[in-house]
Amino acid sequence: MSGERKSASGEDLLIERYFKPLATDAGALSLTDDAAILKPGGDDIVVTTDAIVEGVHFLSDDPADTIAQKALRVNLSDLAAKGATPAGFVLTLALRSVDENWLTAFASGLGTDAGTFNCPLLGGDTVSTPGPVTVSITAFGRIPPDKMVRRSGARPGDRVVVTGTIGDAALGLDVLRKGRTAAALAGNAQAREALISRYRVPQPRNALAGALRAYAHAAMDVSDGLAGDLAKLCAASGVSAIIEVPAIPLSPAAKAALAGGAAGIETLISGGDDYEILCAVPERGFEEFARAAATAGVAVSSIGTIIAKEAAPRFLDETGRELPMSRTSYSHF
Amino acid sequence: MSGERKSASGEDLLIERYFKPLATDAGALSLTDDAAILKPGGDDIVVTTDAIVEGVHFLSDDPADTIAQKALRVNLSDLAAKGATPAGFVLTLALRSVDENWLTAFASGLGTDAGTFNCPLLGGDTVSTPGPVTVSITAFGRIPPDKMVRRSGARPGDRVVVTGTIGDAALGLDVLRKGRTAAALAGNAQAREALISRYRVPQPRNALAGALRAYAHAAMDVSDGLAGDLAKLCAASGVSAIIEVPAIPLSPAAKAALAGGAAGIETLISGGDDYEILCAVPERGFEEFARAAATAGVAVSSIGTIIAKEAAPRFLDETGRELPMSRTSYSHF
Repeated sequence: MSGERKSASGEDLLIERYFKPLATDAGALSLTDDAAILKPGGDDIVVTTDAIVEGVHFLSDDPADTIAQKALRVNLSDLAAKGATPAGFVLTLALRSVDENWLTAFASGLGTDAGTFNCPLLGGDTVSTPGPVTVSITAFGRIPPDKMVRRSGARPGDRVVVTGTIGDAALGLDVLRKGRTAAALAGNAQAREALISRYRVPQPRNALAGALRAYAHAAMDVSDGLAGDLAKLCAASGVSAIIEVPAIPLSPAAKAALAGGAAGIETLISGGDDYEILCAVPERGFEEFARAAATAGVAVSSIGTIIAKEAAPRFLDETGRELPMSRTSYSHF
Repeated sequence: MSGERKSASGEDLLIERYFKPLATDAGALSLTDDAAILKPGGDDIVVTTDAIVEGVHFLSDDPADTIAQKALRVNLSDLAAKGATPAGFVLTLALRSVDENWLTAFASGLGTDAGTFNCPLLGGDTVSTPGPVTVSITAFGRIPPDKMVRRSGARPGDRVVVTGTIGDAALGLDVLRKGRTAAALAGNAQAREALISRYRVPQPRNALAGALRAYAHAAMDVSDGLAGDLAKLCAASGVSAIIEVPAIPLSPAAKAALAGGAAGIETLISGGDDYEILCAVPERGFEEFARAAATAGVAVSSIGTIIAKEAAPRFLDETGRELPMSRTSYSHF
């Protein structure tokens, strides 16, 4: 039992000092009550929860502000994919000890993103742990009744669309682990930094929520690898897909890593932590969707087609040959 | 980095096998989407989050079904104190490995309580950790707009009321740790078991939610010790309180432990894990409140009075002398 018994002030002061300034929403009751109040205002509430664990989802020496940002952004990414508008979040933080510098940076990163994404801290729990730092966030979004974009609506003929670029975070983690990507980019600090940044601070596509609600038949966020997540979307929809691998959007840094022999393309499309949006958009709505995305400032790429088949999606290279996939995604167990 | 990369089936099968059967609410989408849907139906949503950590909030050899029950019940207790009706919860489970027997028992305990308290599993996240098992739950309740019972409404003259009995869980933990309580109750297996059960499986007072909404000026759940939690309620309300220590309700097992020299009364009223409700009820509504509580099957005891003063509450013994309190509650840091 590692919890110490002393005056209530330690835990209370921690909340008072670091987290109360972030609790700007009236429903948070300044973090002085047992619970928060979320006023739906006629909307449905979309609920998502994701935890990140030191040594599993982030590295012990990642900057604390980026750890907080990642913890919130992986949840914001889910809200974006569902077409919901962020409404707030609650935080559970399990810490070994109170490190003021670390907490100051953590709260700063969290506060910045809560402001940027208009997603205020509503409540939380701070607990001691003898193990790795664990940040668990449950985030809430508002959406008009029955309008949540699901995984299950993809139909044959729909275009398969992804936002941003794929595979950067997996390569960034490999750089941090001093793997083949670090070697391949030994002379390219800019590319290494770009990939590391994508691993540490995902870019949730909340600006796309409205376009997804208006045009997408199905959507999800790509967190465990494009190939595996597409398989999940297809399974939920009772369809399959054909993906043109050359159409999968890659960043300049990822292209440089591939050219340097860091990995094959299959590593990128089965790597985790992209936090891009994968969606199925009907052909007739695609142009309008792409225009709405451009207006929202989110790059989208059409990478393939949904087909009527109950089978795993196929990834075809530039010669039309199927890419062999030894694994399709990340799994914890 | 302890997370293994293999096929998606491990994590997905874990969710499919153990948790999907609990996701009985339509809004859970059978746990096959990125998020869940909560339909407020005109109510406010009350949100609370509490985590329990192996070695801190529960012991490694506690039965897995009771660990699940405790994780859910500490959150249900918050909803009860706020006068809210349980609407569902999301679960983040951090595990070192997949132990089928443990998970079967955990899911069984969780499912039983989700049914008992009509609080279905809406979603979750399962992650690997090299550290202690950590169960983080965010629970939701429904309440008519602006009716949440807060900590801040207590007024001078209100009665201070608690449900159930105080101090059992702290003594139960001491039994499990083979402390003085185990010695004091060496010949009384029934009392030892009763106290252990109160530590492992709290009894949230959700049946009292309606009466709290109708009659209480302020309420919170007692999780970190009666004395410290009362001080928080008083501080939030800008008042103080006088408590008659002999009026604090004790179980037969706790009385036996005290008689056997296990601890002084101050240990019980500063010990954590009671998960009873502490509330302030106006004198003129007390009889009706007590009747409503009796109808709901919840024992309530009037233990003192709210007074107009900005100071820590005072605990007076049978001679009117103030009980010295070296510490008032549990704090993680």
